[in-house]
Amino acid sequence: MSTRQPYQLVSREWKTEDTVFEINGVHIGRDRVMIAGPCAVENQEQICTITEFLSKLGIRFLRGGAYKPRTSPYSFQGLKTEGLILLREAADKYGMAVVSEIMSEDKISELVEYADILQVGTRNMQNYPLLRALGKAGKPILLKRGMSSTIEEWLLAAEYIVSSGNERVILCERGIRTFENATRNTLDIAAIPLVKSLSHLPVILDPSQGTGIRDLVPAVSKAAIAAGADGLIIEVHNQPKEALSDGDQSLYLDQFADMLPVLEEIAKLDNRRFGYTREKVRI
Amino acid sequence: MSTRQPYQLVSREWKTEDTVFEINGVHIGRDRVMIAGPCAVENQEQICTITEFLSKLGIRFLRGGAYKPRTSPYSFQGLKTEGLILLREAADKYGMAVVSEIMSEDKISELVEYADILQVGTRNMQNYPLLRALGKAGKPILLKRGMSSTIEEWLLAAEYIVSSGNERVILCERGIRTFENATRNTLDIAAIPLVKSLSHLPVILDPSQGTGIRDLVPAVSKAAIAAGADGLIIEVHNQPKEALSDGDQSLYLDQFADMLPVLEEIAKLDNRRFGYTREKVRI
Amino acid sequence: MSTRQPYQLVSREWKTEDTVFEINGVHIGRDRVMIAGPCAVENQEQICTITEFLSKLGIRFLRGGAYKPRTSPYSFQGLKTEGLILLREAADKYGMAVVSEIMSEDKISELVEYADILQVGTRNMQNYPLLRALGKAGKPILLKRGMSSTIEEWLLAAEYIVSSGNERVILCERGIRTFENATRNTLDIAAIPLVKSLSHLPVILDPSQGTGIRDLVPAVSKAAIAAGADGLIIEVHNQPKEALSDGDQSLYLDQFADMLPVLEEIAKLDNRRFGYTREKVRI
Amino acid sequence: MSTRQPYQLVSREWKTEDTVFEINGVHIGRDRVMIAGPCAVENQEQICTITEFLSKLGIRFLRGGAYKPRTSPYSFQGLKTEGLILLREAADKYGMAVVSEIMSEDKISELVEYADILQVGTRNMQNYPLLRALGKAGKPILLKRGMSSTIEEWLLAAEYIVSSGNERVILCERGIRTFENATRNTLDIAAIPLVKSLSHLPVILDPSQGTGIRDLVPAVSKAAIAAGADGLIIEVHNQPKEALSDGDQSLYLDQFADMLPVLEEIAKLDNRRFGYTREKVRI
Repeated sequence: MSTRQPYQLVSREWKTEDTVFEINGVHIGRDRVMIAGPCAVENQEQICTITEFLSKLGIRFLRGGAYKPRTSPYSFQGLKTEGLILLREAADKYGMAVVSEIMSEDKISELVEYADILQVGTRNMQNYPLLRALGKAGKPILLKRGMSSTIEEWLLAAEYIVSSGNERVILCERGIRTFENATRNTLDIAAIPLVKSLSHLPVILDPSQGTGIRDLVPAVSKAAIAAGADGLIIEVHNQPKEALSDGDQSLYLDQFADMLPVLEEIAKLDNRRFGYTREKVRI
Repeated sequence: MSTRQPYQLVSREWKTEDTVFEINGVHIGRDRVMIAGPCAVENQEQICTITEFLSKLGIRFLRGGAYKPRTSPYSFQGLKTEGLILLREAADKYGMAVVSEIMSEDKISELVEYADILQVGTRNMQNYPLLRALGKAGKPILLKRGMSSTIEEWLLAAEYIVSSGNERVILCERGIRTFENATRNTLDIAAIPLVKSLSHLPVILDPSQGTGIRDLVPAVSKAAIAAGADGLIIEVHNQPKEALSDGDQSLYLDQFADMLPVLEEIAKLDNRRFGYTREKVRI
Repeated sequence: MSTRQPYQLVSREWKTEDTVFEINGVHIGRDRVMIAGPCAVENQEQICTITEFLSKLGIRFLRGGAYKPRTSPYSFQGLKTEGLILLREAADKYGMAVVSEIMSEDKISELVEYADILQVGTRNMQNYPLLRALGKAGKPILLKRGMSSTIEEWLLAAEYIVSSGNERVILCERGIRTFENATRNTLDIAAIPLVKSLSHLPVILDPSQGTGIRDLVPAVSKAAIAAGADGLIIEVHNQPKEALSDGDQSLYLDQFADMLPVLEEIAKLDNRRFGYTREKVRI
Repeated sequence: MSTRQPYQLVSREWKTEDTVFEINGVHIGRDRVMIAGPCAVENQEQICTITEFLSKLGIRFLRGGAYKPRTSPYSFQGLKTEGLILLREAADKYGMAVVSEIMSEDKISELVEYADILQVGTRNMQNYPLLRALGKAGKPILLKRGMSSTIEEWLLAAEYIVSSGNERVILCERGIRTFENATRNTLDIAAIPLVKSLSHLPVILDPSQGTGIRDLVPAVSKAAIAAGADGLIIEVHNQPKEALSDGDQSLYLDQFADMLPVLEEIAKLDNRRFGYTREKVRI
């Protein structure tokens, strides 16, 4: 093990080249990846409307929560299995891959059945039995940074997964908790280049959770791509004001579409393209 | 539900009087409770030496980790089942109750077999499936505050347990994460009277995790009792410098014994006594 | 200079014994000191009512802001010179010493004329030209910790004053800024014993600024004395609800009087007494 | 005054259009501005070498500290008047404007003589007497965000200056203090679009102080421009490893030159250009 860092398998010292793996035609870690969708799956009409819209833009990754970790036991907790079924059906119809959150070990087999990437939320970043089990899940893992986790702790959480057998880990910066409450969290933009230098794993950014404010998402998304992020995960909704969760931070569909061209332009400056069907994006 | 607070069953509005429940002869929530022991069970000699010493002081609650959540996958992870067996044997020999950490749902039945109070660590405070399952565990739960959790989130985590059927929840302030790194965490001393005013649940404090520095533990323990805490949970070790985890914050046995009399004096000022066998304490 | 710490003159290594200096009959650093009064001097009636009340309790130190650093330029900024005159007159009438805030170098001579202890507020803790000038002021300085200052930075700020010629510095913990907004700041209780071990300077605590909530002040004051603080500085007001600033955190006069006896009891456990006229306290 | 915000003159509600003012041929608030130079002026050779290099790139604004606020009284405190003279001479020789820090009211007349923009450092953001005096200084002010200041407090600090008579204020995000210590501060990238929406004042970003790590500066600079920042202030040094202060975060001269073209490309995506002599940049 490195004498400098407490993590090993996830480090650049262990493996110099970027980790790249293909899902649904996109080479994550080499192409830029765009993951979009609602905070939570609410019903068939909602998820189908959003998915159809995203697919027309060429987006290949659909996010949607079925099991939702909510601060209050009395808040909407997600549609659970039904939500996963709706998500899978919508994704299959439009040729998209599914990203959804896993909250406990006993749901791994179900998530593996319905989703293509299993997301570990910020509250579970240090749920070590879960991380170990995900090392054997056979699916890529999107590992969100804990809301008060240092970069070292985050990489060590990834080390739990990788050392348990699964190298396909996508790190996701989603903002940390600070004294500033004008935004929901404080996005740590410097974490993008710093983690890219420390680790070979892909790093994406969540501007929706990171800011909590819809109108800040385009500017922050541009910043993330400019800083070298391997992609974005963004909450969009056909009716944000009626959303059952996180409506304030969900983009309107048109708002989402409008920001894609400039993101591509910024990506091109690094000679990197977004991994979606280009001809579709241009229609 | 209260219009003022998002939690209900744990609130003072729902239930005015303090929640009090008896374990091993101590009325938690009315008596002050002292929980002491090593960070982790390491071997039979260690746990027996410590337990014997504590029992002679009249201490009735033995803490000890068997399943340890560690930031690195390469750190000592605890003796697991073997640790629980050693802990139970030592406790039984000296008439003590056992407090140990639960990290995942699939270990609840094992913990229930060996421990009297199940501790939820700071990293799992928002592990909602675990909290719900603990609502049905039939044993008291010691719920540590998340390292970056607000008081409201902490009370809502307790609400998950209570609303799932288990009112015997002990809240434990253990320090929050701040910019200050002279101490391991920053103890939120005002949380003690504030939570006591918002909730009927007992609230204790962990000066060991809260400071990370052995020599600060006595002063902070006095502060907690003076502020009205319902008790303390303290790491002690017969050989702190050889401890497999958290040695720097573990008290020497004599250091622990030396601070008990003044804690009792402070408790008396509120007309409250520590719940241990008084005659033993005086030898 | 010490190889371990970046500060020198304020360190325990430089000077082993506690710094003790006498003001108005109280040996600060040996006796416990109680400083009380309104956030700001508002008018003659207010300051006289409060001062008379405090003097009957035996309190020897009157606080009151004349120059107030306010976040908004449109908030009440203090009565300035007029406030200092009112403060001095009230204090003289009742035999008390005056503590008031200094905000800029060009007011030092005025403050020196009217006050006995010059307070440096949290926003000026790193106003180095001011600190250097206060090293030559010839009056004791009460140096509040910056709201996001580490303990090391705080001691280095004191080093600026001491190395400029003034060893009579009282350090004051007043809470740090964290993500928790249930209280105005998060009091760092462990800072009391930690700073006492690192430095020979007296350390007091401000439970009013530290919590921002009147009803938490008694519990936190007890905690501070139990933790070994050399005193307290507390906001009291004859009509908190009409206060021009900080009313929510100001104690009612009776509330203040009620908490004194238990503070004395806690102080006695360390064989230390509060520095006020004992017979008066007992009436 | 607005019922929604506590600030008035700096708000978008008060004045819809961007504040734009010209200095040295650059329209700050409309053009993007690049300010570069060493942390501190150290000697004539250093400042001349750096200034010559920057001028060849077309940079129009030279930064350099003459009065340095240092955490320790024993650290290098700047060359003071001599530093200002060296800075002014170098700037004049190469046609550049000077940005330098003001620490106290009694130095304002001197700074006004030698500098074109007066910088208020993070430690003085709430030094209200200084802010008021700068409202009458007749020079533009670069107001750094306090290291633990909320956006609201920062805008209120600007309100102090503007309401005292000086509308030419440039806001500078320079990172806030958080628990994460992998970087010196945590840059709040979302503050850029958020403050631009709340206020008409120009907003720039300091990636050097914000990260504390040289190699992160290019990525973060790109992010800032992509997010809509009105410019950057960057520390560069001809010999960073020998720098008397902040060497770790100072760019090598070539490193600085290398990142300019891509910053310009990103700026162009918004139809905004950097305000420097373009032909020079291309040599």
